Amino acid sequence: MWLYVAALVGLYYLVRWYRERQVVSHFRDKYIFIAGWDSGFGNLVARQLDRHGLRVLAVCLMEKGAEQLRTQMSDRLETVILDVTKTESITAATQWVKERVGDRRLWGLVNNAGIIAPVTYCEWQKTEDSVNTLKVNLIGLIQMTVSMLPLVRRAWGRIVNVSTILGKIASTAGIYCCSKYGVEAFSDILRYELRHFGVKISIIEPGYFKTGMTDMEKSLGKVKQAWEEDCVHIKESYGQQFFDA
Amino acid sequence: MWLYVAALVGLYYLVRWYRERQVVSHFRDKYIFIAGWDSGFGNLVARQLDRHGLRVLAVCLMEKGAEQLRTQMSDRLETVILDVTKTESITAATQWVKERVGDRRLWGLVNNAGIIAPVTYCEWQKTEDSVNTLKVNLIGLIQMTVSMLPLVRRAWGRIVNVSTILGKIASTAGIYCCSKYGVEAFSDILRYELRHFGVKISIIEPGYFKTGMTDMEKSLGKVKQAWEEDCVHIKESYGQQFFDA
Repeated sequence: MWLYVAALVGLYYLVRWYRERQVVSHFRDKYIFIAGWDSGFGNLVARQLDRHGLRVLAVCLMEKGAEQLRTQMSDRLETVILDVTKTESITAATQWVKERVGDRRLWGLVNNAGIIAPVTYCEWQKTEDSVNTLKVNLIGLIQMTVSMLPLVRRAWGRIVNVSTILGKIASTAGIYCCSKYGVEAFSDILRYELRHFGVKISIIEPGYFKTGMTDMEKSLGKVKQAWEEDCVHIKESYGQQFFDA
Repeated sequence: MWLYVAALVGLYYLVRWYRERQVVSHFRDKYIFIAGWDSGFGNLVARQLDRHGLRVLAVCLMEKGAEQLRTQMSDRLETVILDVTKTESITAATQWVKERVGDRRLWGLVNNAGIIAPVTYCEWQKTEDSVNTLKVNLIGLIQMTVSMLPLVRRAWGRIVNVSTILGKIASTAGIYCCSKYGVEAFSDILRYELRHFGVKISIIEPGYFKTGMTDMEKSLGKVKQAWEEDCVHIKESYGQQFFDA
């Protein structure tokens, strides 16, 4: 009996070893579209995939950013100017990607574009900051994904949505958290809906990593600024002592 | 020893019995603001609280709705026209509530306003339907709550956000689900942030109840309409057979 158990365990590890040895091939034929490459994980993944030989199509907010990116990457890189809060901008970018990938289709889509308002109490945040966070992080991501879906589906591709551990645990970061909760739901639903087509949806949920977004000094400065700009009734309700603590 | 255990159990039930006997008094001094009264749970709670003698302030999208509501409720009812997707409309409604409640403050806020796009695959939904669902159900709810917060805080009041079980389990209903995930995160964060002020935040997560939103015939009609209006590439990808099944 123990012999059978040992054989089964051995077989399990053999299959696992074989599966983990599989690597993606023909990198140079594969197009990947990265939204939010300019810092943190997006930048790392863009440079890594470019080094491996993939054809990176990157989203930039402004022409200046595109120029800066070109100096870091190979000649294969192509960039497009895009504002994820504008439907017509997403439509134009999709058409641009379509023309680039042609018959090779879109092998992957990485949604890393995101902003964070000052990490303060929900009530302290400016209305326009809150609304903008939801527009970029959630509405923009959804619209972008749905728009690129036909290109990814034809390649039996994959979509990687960069969320955060705050998309699972609602604690600090107010509205940012709400937007990432939405991203988690969207990704889970889409994974189910696209399983027929062989399209894979992954979520990355980083904890506290040292990126531009988690710069403590910058964050505290923003919180201080938010407090100073808050309405009188908020300052009276919470009190300076509460803020200082 | 068993005597101590029996005494402790007895004490537990005594405290529980006492707590559950506590009822809210002075109903006629209490103002409650209800967004989304026109059907389902919102309508039920509005009528019930009105019967108990509370002063219901109700949100209506149009004057016609306000007139209809007045026929169902007591003379205490007051209505305000509000579009939760417009910041200036929320600001005006908050000012209106402020004038009504005066020194008595706002005892409660019920956020029941919500819409649902056809319950189909995310990709089948029209962009404007998806964006609108997020604007009403999530951005609108957040803006409304933050705007009314000073009035609720001064009354050590309560906020009740009507979510759904789909705010916990991402399955069908696509973008609606994402919006409700956001509502859950917002409510959990706000509960933590407002505990110092004695303000309570509750979430209602109904399952499948017979309301206007869950009318099967109507829903199927909307799904059919969404499919018929979908782009050719969606129809080709999924196929008529997929839809019929």
